[in-house]
Amino acid sequence: MRREITVTAPVNIAVIKYWGKRDVKLNLPTNSSLSVTLSQDEMCSKTTVSVDKSYTKDTLVLNGEENEINGRLVNVLNVMRESTTESEIKDLHVRIESTNNFPTAAGLASSASGFAALVYGLGKIFVPSYTNSQLSTIARQGSGSACRSLFGGFVAWNKGEKLDGSDSSAVEIAPQSHWDDLDALICVVSANKKAVASTAGMQRTVETSPYLQHRADNVVPKRMDDIIDAIKSKDFDKFADITMMDSNSFHASCLDTHPPIFYLTDVSRAIINVVHALNNAMGRHVAAYTFDAGPNAVLYVQRKDKELVLSIINSLFGPCEGVECNSLDNILRRYNIDADLSAFQSPNGLSRIIQTSIGDGPRIV
Amino acid sequence: MRREITVTAPVNIAVIKYWGKRDVKLNLPTNSSLSVTLSQDEMCSKTTVSVDKSYTKDTLVLNGEENEINGRLVNVLNVMRESTTESEIKDLHVRIESTNNFPTAAGLASSASGFAALVYGLGKIFVPSYTNSQLSTIARQGSGSACRSLFGGFVAWNKGEKLDGSDSSAVEIAPQSHWDDLDALICVVSANKKAVASTAGMQRTVETSPYLQHRADNVVPKRMDDIIDAIKSKDFDKFADITMMDSNSFHASCLDTHPPIFYLTDVSRAIINVVHALNNAMGRHVAAYTFDAGPNAVLYVQRKDKELVLSIINSLFGPCEGVECNSLDNILRRYNIDADLSAFQSPNGLSRIIQTSIGDGPRIV
Repeated sequence: MRREITVTAPVNIAVIKYWGKRDVKLNLPTNSSLSVTLSQDEMCSKTTVSVDKSYTKDTLVLNGEENEINGRLVNVLNVMRESTTESEIKDLHVRIESTNNFPTAAGLASSASGFAALVYGLGKIFVPSYTNSQLSTIARQGSGSACRSLFGGFVAWNKGEKLDGSDSSAVEIAPQSHWDDLDALICVVSANKKAVASTAGMQRTVETSPYLQHRADNVVPKRMDDIIDAIKSKDFDKFADITMMDSNSFHASCLDTHPPIFYLTDVSRAIINVVHALNNAMGRHVAAYTFDAGPNAVLYVQRKDKELVLSIINSLFGPCEGVECNSLDNILRRYNIDADLSAFQSPNGLSRIIQTSIGDGPRIV
Repeated sequence: MRREITVTAPVNIAVIKYWGKRDVKLNLPTNSSLSVTLSQDEMCSKTTVSVDKSYTKDTLVLNGEENEINGRLVNVLNVMRESTTESEIKDLHVRIESTNNFPTAAGLASSASGFAALVYGLGKIFVPSYTNSQLSTIARQGSGSACRSLFGGFVAWNKGEKLDGSDSSAVEIAPQSHWDDLDALICVVSANKKAVASTAGMQRTVETSPYLQHRADNVVPKRMDDIIDAIKSKDFDKFADITMMDSNSFHASCLDTHPPIFYLTDVSRAIINVVHALNNAMGRHVAAYTFDAGPNAVLYVQRKDKELVLSIINSLFGPCEGVECNSLDNILRRYNIDADLSAFQSPNGLSRIIQTSIGDGPRIV
């Protein structure tokens, strides 16, 4: 008896941020969140799950190295085995081998795509009838934001109301095809400073920030409604404003934590200022930034504006990989932009810019 | 007919921050605030006010240069003239000459001490019976935080409830003598980047930040009560915690503004992290930071801990002016501190450290 499946799952980047758990054990969030799934061509986790009666234990191999099976993974395996209707695989051990097609040096959390691929693969073997939304509640227990990587396009993670968390799951708001000229530029900030570890940062915010609960109760619900409207009507201006406001609101609640948590650096802040100056000079939104728990910016752009934004970011912050790196003056002249952006210059502030776009959900290879 | 008086007034640094006006015209704040008055030996504004029947117009000379009399100053002059009971000086023109004994390069707002000295001097001439609290409501109309420079020691600016602002005034919580072993280190961050102007930043926060009103209504009132308790009982741990939390809360509301407002830089953040690491390693609070609308840190320390904090800050951030600049390792060993602070090193991150202490209120020279 042996079954094996290989799947891939995408990375997602939230535009309404998840920060803080109302239930640590079940990984239930204090607020709903919403993300954009990125193309698996540039970034995905690829996972092979197998069950075989010859296996004598559960095995997890991440990027070629055997890892310990932690408590969260044990929980997921227990759920899968309890839920399967096929008695013959119920008691088999599993082997999970997973790799990422993007370097961890990119500074992007791989836990979301990794856990989504794992749960998707296990689901296809143990309970093929499970919907992706059902699988998302299981993925959530492994890594909160992983639940949003079970779908492509635009994905909401509803916080849910039930104590057992059974309604805290991901749903697709719109598929990739709905708004497929939306691109993403991942601006990887040069790691010139040792990062300060934020141990249990999320729960420290829950415990000490007066802003976080106010944000969860009074700010996020309306933003969720508004950004879903913006996505449905493909209103980039509105989408961009809400995305930027919510990124800043999330980082404000980190700063409001005691002691405070910082993820944005001077380079991050310069990127934020450039985006606002550029949008202002153009009289419309050409880019929206969002920052996860790190200094790297993800810029959402409409495809028509991608070259403009990319060339300006490259010119100001380096590293000019794979694109013509023009002087700032030339670029501003070419696009007829009346803005003084030179104050924001920070050469080699970025080590890399990953160009990607919206993508689809998990795939069976 | 001639009268002349020369006065000095101190700088104050808020520990509960003022940010946002509920009435722009009357300079009424959205929340109460509380500050520590700093010694005039290191920093003060010195102002000579005279009235003379030979004067043909009102004149304002700041640091040797004649300045225009703006609307706010006109209002103050009108109030003074309307309030005086001496008919013979009512219609005289005034000459105001003011200088600061600290360079503007220190990056410290001089408007508070400058306006306080001006109003104090005018008050002594036009309405000598006015109390400092009465004068503070007049100073407030010129520059909000100036009202707190009418007293020494620890000063609350009560936001007041009346529409006309007559109860929005400063009061002394405790005099300088109450807690006179409290020192302040003003860490002036090197201006290696062009500052981004935040035009009307305060009111943009009022208009766009979901946090600010919540902070005013639900966070600041309790902090005011708590820090007054801490001051009265000279509880430095409590004073330090509230001071740091409120500084971060203020900067969080700036970050929560759309577009966001940034004052803290990487060096500011490193100082914050060092203070928390140091307090943590010592098992008690040896320093509390607070940041106004700029990157410079003001550190409050008890005198017994001043040398420790000063030597560590100097070692990590330069510039080692006027103090022995030891290696970090030596300092940590000397004080028996078990903390790895090397990650925060930013040589020449500071251009200057001003050592000062708590001070008294306006003086007649």
